[in-house]
Amino acid sequence: MMKYLLIMEYDGSEFYGYQKQKGLRTIEGQLELALEKLTKKKIMTYGAGRTDKGVHAMGQVVHFTAEIQITPYRLIAGLNHFLPDDIQIIHCEEASAFFHARFHAKEKSYKYFLYNDYFMPPTLRKYRGHRNYPLDMEAMERASRYLMGDHDFRAFTQDLPPDENTHRILNDIKIQKIDHDIVFTFRGRSFLKNMIRIIVGSLIDVGRGKHPPEWILEVLESKDREKAGMTVEPGGLYLWDIRY
Amino acid sequence: MMKYLLIMEYDGSEFYGYQKQKGLRTIEGQLELALEKLTKKKIMTYGAGRTDKGVHAMGQVVHFTAEIQITPYRLIAGLNHFLPDDIQIIHCEEASAFFHARFHAKEKSYKYFLYNDYFMPPTLRKYRGHRNYPLDMEAMERASRYLMGDHDFRAFTQDLPPDENTHRILNDIKIQKIDHDIVFTFRGRSFLKNMIRIIVGSLIDVGRGKHPPEWILEVLESKDREKAGMTVEPGGLYLWDIRY
Repeated sequence: MMKYLLIMEYDGSEFYGYQKQKGLRTIEGQLELALEKLTKKKIMTYGAGRTDKGVHAMGQVVHFTAEIQITPYRLIAGLNHFLPDDIQIIHCEEASAFFHARFHAKEKSYKYFLYNDYFMPPTLRKYRGHRNYPLDMEAMERASRYLMGDHDFRAFTQDLPPDENTHRILNDIKIQKIDHDIVFTFRGRSFLKNMIRIIVGSLIDVGRGKHPPEWILEVLESKDREKAGMTVEPGGLYLWDIRY
Repeated sequence: MMKYLLIMEYDGSEFYGYQKQKGLRTIEGQLELALEKLTKKKIMTYGAGRTDKGVHAMGQVVHFTAEIQITPYRLIAGLNHFLPDDIQIIHCEEASAFFHARFHAKEKSYKYFLYNDYFMPPTLRKYRGHRNYPLDMEAMERASRYLMGDHDFRAFTQDLPPDENTHRILNDIKIQKIDHDIVFTFRGRSFLKNMIRIIVGSLIDVGRGKHPPEWILEVLESKDREKAGMTVEPGGLYLWDIRY
């Protein structure tokens, strides 16, 4: 038995998210289909992060185990041949028998790209969020500091059963202006459903002056989704990198 | 009667080209539909250049005449409200009664973006051409010089009737390496159907060493489409700017 690790990039705009779902076009589904075409075997794959509908990835990591003998180079070429052109395998290596793409991830980073100018270029509409009003970088930066560290992020996720653990550790949030974009970079071991998109929506509310930076602390302490900002559009979000 | 000039950007990937066609989604068709919704009148528009299926624009110019009294600012906001998000009006002004977007264009520029690295990022697949082998910039540059100036470009267009005038003046071709892209910029008053995409396909054949730079002169003189290179993929091509 051989274990392989793959790194893949994808454009999420024409998928119903990462996770396999019957009758729907998903990234995991397409990957397992390509693996089956290549190896003539049904192979289960394990992705490090489940991205939502419309969310992209630059460095999704996946592992699988199979009774095959193929060099990593041949696996890359063979899988890319069978995959649709909105998914690309960019790296493959043999992994140790103990490796697990999800459980062994030490830190994931996600980036949210927000186009911040009057007109949104049509060619970017699926690859950026968009706000056409000025945003106060310093206020957003100050607000973001309240979120770093170990907190109960219940206010920043979709409704979950009350007994579900919503504590997470946010290692870092960085906010940069790069050309027309404001780029939010998040680093942490794991994230709750929609957590990053709700945090960005809330930081935007601070940036446009609807609330002062300290309001973020109130939201955090309220543990109430209703208090936080909107869930921003998925196209701006990228699973960027995973560290093991 | 008022005459207006519009500048628009669009993502060509979900259109059957610029020109109106019954039952098909085209840029001109969508623009006239939005104008009709806004003004409650049927208005004919005149675009400066007819881009093909899958080709994008950063600065398409259009004019139209109508019995309306709307400020340019209101026209931009109103049209963008009714247009789909793969078309954006980015400028509008009142034009003189004699202005014609197509006939008065002094020079158009087009850019072709060719992604030149091993893996094509999935998010760029509709917005770049792609070649994963090395291309000799200097050889392409030398070949491109044979094409500048006044020539019969019959070899670099689709089959046209023999009596159709296929002379054009190519003011300039510039070839630059920008990050992962090779960017070809073409400037001229007007271009033949597929001319830029066939020229890029031919320059690529020189760049990868299939032919020496002087071969381009042979192709030009042959006036034979079969001698030239392939028509490269439309997604890399952008109508960039028009000078009046």
